[in-house]
Amino acid sequence: MENVLVLLAVVFVAGRVGGEISERLRQPAVIGEIVAGIILGSAVLGIIPTAEEAPEAIEGFSALSELGVIFLLFTAGLETNLRSLRRVGATASVVALGGITLPFLGGLLLMRMIGAGTAESLVVATAMVATSVGATVRVLRDRGKFGTMEAQVILAAAVLDDVLGLMVLAVVVGVVKGQFSIAETALAAGLAVAFIVVFLTAGRATLRRIFPFLINLKATEPVLAVAIAGALLLAASAHLIGLAPIIGAFIAGVIFAEIGGEHDLEQKIRPLALLLVPFFFVRVGSLVEPDVLTTADGLLLVGGVTAVAILTKVAGCGLPALRLGRKSAAIVGVGMTPRGEVGIIVASIGFFLGAIPREVYGVIVMMSLLTTLVAPPVLVWLYGRLREADTKTTTH
Amino acid sequence: MENVLVLLAVVFVAGRVGGEISERLRQPAVIGEIVAGIILGSAVLGIIPTAEEAPEAIEGFSALSELGVIFLLFTAGLETNLRSLRRVGATASVVALGGITLPFLGGLLLMRMIGAGTAESLVVATAMVATSVGATVRVLRDRGKFGTMEAQVILAAAVLDDVLGLMVLAVVVGVVKGQFSIAETALAAGLAVAFIVVFLTAGRATLRRIFPFLINLKATEPVLAVAIAGALLLAASAHLIGLAPIIGAFIAGVIFAEIGGEHDLEQKIRPLALLLVPFFFVRVGSLVEPDVLTTADGLLLVGGVTAVAILTKVAGCGLPALRLGRKSAAIVGVGMTPRGEVGIIVASIGFFLGAIPREVYGVIVMMSLLTTLVAPPVLVWLYGRLREADTKTTTH
Repeated sequence: MENVLVLLAVVFVAGRVGGEISERLRQPAVIGEIVAGIILGSAVLGIIPTAEEAPEAIEGFSALSELGVIFLLFTAGLETNLRSLRRVGATASVVALGGITLPFLGGLLLMRMIGAGTAESLVVATAMVATSVGATVRVLRDRGKFGTMEAQVILAAAVLDDVLGLMVLAVVVGVVKGQFSIAETALAAGLAVAFIVVFLTAGRATLRRIFPFLINLKATEPVLAVAIAGALLLAASAHLIGLAPIIGAFIAGVIFAEIGGEHDLEQKIRPLALLLVPFFFVRVGSLVEPDVLTTADGLLLVGGVTAVAILTKVAGCGLPALRLGRKSAAIVGVGMTPRGEVGIIVASIGFFLGAIPREVYGVIVMMSLLTTLVAPPVLVWLYGRLREADTKTTTH
Repeated sequence: MENVLVLLAVVFVAGRVGGEISERLRQPAVIGEIVAGIILGSAVLGIIPTAEEAPEAIEGFSALSELGVIFLLFTAGLETNLRSLRRVGATASVVALGGITLPFLGGLLLMRMIGAGTAESLVVATAMVATSVGATVRVLRDRGKFGTMEAQVILAAAVLDDVLGLMVLAVVVGVVKGQFSIAETALAAGLAVAFIVVFLTAGRATLRRIFPFLINLKATEPVLAVAIAGALLLAASAHLIGLAPIIGAFIAGVIFAEIGGEHDLEQKIRPLALLLVPFFFVRVGSLVEPDVLTTADGLLLVGGVTAVAILTKVAGCGLPALRLGRKSAAIVGVGMTPRGEVGIIVASIGFFLGAIPREVYGVIVMMSLLTTLVAPPVLVWLYGRLREADTKTTTH
């Protein structure tokens, strides 16, 4: 598996087979893909090498997985209407705020209770704050639930959550390094907000004006090419100012939804997502750190951290969404639960800062993985119940 | 540019802009993409870092570029009919043979004449033998010339050429290492031939039988997913037995052409090629080694090697194709001229074996690049002349 091509072929096939088995068990495909990653990873078969064993192949795999989640969120943006995002803005804001506050306090409290130091507790709490809606978006898309109110709230809240999470991370890194600076934190937050606002207003207006010229380019498939360029450029720009690249990709999607609507863009982007997305979820699964599960202490810590992570996010995001109804609030709460790669990124930052030991890093990775694995089947089950409730309402 | 996402965004946009400018100058888009790579590379702007400067980003970029040429050749396979490949078999065989013999002898002679040692001469001669039809395929596809007799001859000859080239490489590496083995060379050749024959017969028959089951999978877009899996698996298998991955991808395309025809496969694969192919050609351009151009000796050597590379390939492949008519023979000869990444791969093998010094490595890279840059515009010009000739024939 040292050759990147061989690795990619095996990963793609395993991911699709896992997804297919999952679907046949009436579970979302994303679960099968993550499980395929766990099985192929160093935890079980060791077919996917670690970054130390085969750095070249892993960098290639990781680049494709990044593109995968970018095109997944770009597709989500394409299927999103800016007006409906704005309409849910108020609800999404409280959902995002709740989804930051409760998990942070919960994580901090838990770690302090078991006697962890300040730096360690702060990093775990920050990882609790992370949200990665990739898995949720995948379930919503596969089940055709994109137009629902809950989906719009989740997407809008995810964008806000990322901005707030960035601020929390900036503060925590500052505190851990012993050089916290209000100015730097304010700058990071200001840049993030400016990025989103500028692209959704001026960027959108500019694109609308130059679009008629762009689609008359001589090169093949100009609309698709311009859309891909937009997705990549916004994802890269988001990364450069400290936001998650997927936020940039999502915003690019929202912009193109308006402009590229009549150009079959959704249908042309779909093959890209089909090729690239499995790499992302198999990669997430392959990052599992099973060592922490071999000691009673480790097992207990993973259980505790994961339980707090789930409860605080479901409550923190679900309660503010109660005005949408109990079932919808549950969907929002569960949909915001996955920490995915964002939790793992926070853990690596903490680890490289020397703020957490390797075991705590492993605990956060397991928590990120478990929250990502739990959400999809619960979402499918909740949507099933919601449909029943709907049917009851319309028949009485 | 240390972040892979930023690098990919810049490369994609630059590649497309280069392609667009090229098209407006009535040149093939592929020229603009390669030139974009030269400009972004360390030779001019240095925006694309070297593998030493940013190994992670470069590995990601290189993985995408490999996928790019794989999907390009897979598309070529999809648009190819196995029967028409067989029909041109005899012509393609002599074209391939001529395209191996003449460049090898020419390269050997030139290097011996300027006083190079045996090992060095053999490596340069082997690099002369290389064929990379990526650029030619791209031109033929963009201009809708895929169904032509010349295109079929070029594609069939490229497959045979790769098998023969593999044998030459095995022999030369054995001689350079001082451990040439007839058994190993025969094994390599046997494996390569078996690979092609087995997949085009048994593999094809098996797929035809199980295809009806595969397209009833529950997962999204089963046909496209199975085709992608096939392309990746055959490319990886080709690599594992020592063939170029693009040969595996091309054969996968030929197999799916028959089976996936009524499933709109071509149209669904197109967005993948659109995203990935520019990475390949920009990467080829970025590998330029301009240092050899700074001395009179280097300049002269690049000029001599490139001239011999072009003349021997055009004559070696064109003369055996004369029965198709003079214009068609010229198209076949020019179409087989690009050495692309294959020439560069041979150069790296020779360099890592210690058979050639760094300057000669640079000379081969420049030759590979120049042959790849020269062919596309000449092809376009030849097709223009062919059309005029056709018109004359039909009007008199």
